[in-house]
Amino acid sequence: MKISARNVFKGTVKQLTIGSVNAEVVVELPGGTEIVSIITKHSAESMGLAVGKGVYAVVKASDVLIGEPHEPH
Amino acid sequence: MKISARNVFKGTVKQLTIGSVNAEVVVELPGGTEIVSIITKHSAESMGLAVGKGVYAVVKASDVLIGEPHEPH
Amino acid sequence: MKISARNVFKGTVKQLTIGSVNAEVVVELPGGTEIVSIITKHSAESMGLAVGKGVYAVVKASDVLIGEPHEPH
Amino acid sequence: MKISARNVFKGTVKQLTIGSVNAEVVVELPGGTEIVSIITKHSAESMGLAVGKGVYAVVKASDVLIGEPHEPH
Amino acid sequence: MKISARNVFKGTVKQLTIGSVNAEVVVELPGGTEIVSIITKHSAESMGLAVGKGVYAVVKASDVLIGEPHEPH
Amino acid sequence: MKISARNVFKGTVKQLTIGSVNAEVVVELPGGTEIVSIITKHSAESMGLAVGKGVYAVVKASDVLIGEPHEPH
Repeated sequence: MKISARNVFKGTVKQLTIGSVNAEVVVELPGGTEIVSIITKHSAESMGLAVGKGVYAVVKASDVLIGEPHEPH
Repeated sequence: MKISARNVFKGTVKQLTIGSVNAEVVVELPGGTEIVSIITKHSAESMGLAVGKGVYAVVKASDVLIGEPHEPH
Repeated sequence: MKISARNVFKGTVKQLTIGSVNAEVVVELPGGTEIVSIITKHSAESMGLAVGKGVYAVVKASDVLIGEPHEPH
Repeated sequence: MKISARNVFKGTVKQLTIGSVNAEVVVELPGGTEIVSIITKHSAESMGLAVGKGVYAVVKASDVLIGEPHEPH
Repeated sequence: MKISARNVFKGTVKQLTIGSVNAEVVVELPGGTEIVSIITKHSAESMGLAVGKGVYAVVKASDVLIGEPHEPH
Repeated sequence: MKISARNVFKGTVKQLTIGSVNAEVVVELPGGTEIVSIITKHSAESMGLAVGKGVYAVVKASDVLIGEPHEPH
């Protein structure tokens, strides 16, 4: 499936924490940047996520906020 | 303000498209990765966004999906 | 790509409205149920969306609210 | 309350998993389609969710992504 | 419909801007606090939104970020 | 950092519940209004969130739905 999300980043699972309902996935991109994702425990298990597995981190453009380095004085 | 979002990426505005209600902001990270954001036109204008401006792209962890490289056969 | 989203619905583009920054896509599922999506104009164009095209509507579980039929008295 | 969300689907709770903070709700629509939702444990309890209860699954149009059946070659 | 969203605020439409696909709705709460919403143009029109109309602003808990007043030194 | 989010509300942490992966934060605004947020446990801990701490609740405009007081007859 090709997805409409404008932001698709290829990386590797660096860390995986499974909770009772959700799971936290830390994805490391080439260069060392990390993206953290919360998905359902069910998804993490059905995808067979594990440290070292190659994955994509996917973000819809409408879910990206913009920040400025400094607050106005 | 320090924000709870786990994903905060420093970059530069590469492209800015202003619509009637929303605006599309393309942020280029060091290394050339691009992140696309949709924010309100009002926010883009009140922040004085312009090509070349230094900004942060901010994503809440619960808004990051995980994809696998290949569909199961 | 296989996606972590728990909700993936196969359907057909029934209606497409292109704005200046965003596009509205109405997807019709088998049986007649409709799902409405807002994506960027850029995504709609780069995917070559058009009425009649087969697509998936994808929703992350954390973006689904639950409602009750009647308000409490 | 009538809600602005474009996507409101009537169904029945098929499965309910309560975690420490969140809960996973599987809603079955007529015809057998399932929609999975993550809401807070507090909401699930205050709504009295239980298997068999009639509910609505509600999705904002800006939270729906579009996927294509095949990746480009 | 009673909704699972933990955040439901009663107010009045103070300002309404209709775009080609989306609409921006500024809701004023008692006390003067304003909440800004982006919904589809279609929803704004089908709900008959207009300045002065009584409405609710609804936010899912997983869509609320937390910020701290000062950045760390 | 100044954030593009249109909705930034200053308040105080009233209640904090830590789960295995996520945390629920109840923020009380001046006047008594409460906003509930779900963030990662990791964010809650790294920000040192605790009851009584001054924080901001931040919501992107595209994550705000609009409801009407009464369902149509």
